[in-house]
Amino acid sequence: MDKRLAPEKRIGLALRAARQAKNLSQEELSFECGLHRTYIGAVERGEKNLTLKNLVKLAKSLDVSASAIMVNAGL
Amino acid sequence: MDKRLAPEKRIGLALRAARQAKNLSQEELSFECGLHRTYIGAVERGEKNLTLKNLVKLAKSLDVSASAIMVNAGL
Repeated sequence: MDKRLAPEKRIGLALRAARQAKNLSQEELSFECGLHRTYIGAVERGEKNLTLKNLVKLAKSLDVSASAIMVNAGL
Repeated sequence: MDKRLAPEKRIGLALRAARQAKNLSQEELSFECGLHRTYIGAVERGEKNLTLKNLVKLAKSLDVSASAIMVNAGL
């Protein structure tokens, strides 16, 4: 992960990679975790300052730990 | 870390442990990271839904990675 990118951009890329690894669309993930599809899109583009609760929610729906997402984001 | 505790409680305990391991008071950490001392207290008590940016700020001031804090929180 490029360390010059902002933390929210890096976490967005890591979340997108985890979602794609599970072969889920944003819509399917949205259904799983109860967060809106457009919100998930914005998170993946690094446009949101994600909160701990939502990170945990997303990670759980992706069957990964929140810390694994953070590690993959290089944070 | 007790898995029955809420994520914000667990991250608070992990952050407090990291701060104490560095022998920093909440006031000293506040000075380092630019977040208010009372906010740091509330985060450590698990009363705040911490954002990614503030977690990264706190971790940086504690000379640890944000992912290490997450791992220690069992998240």
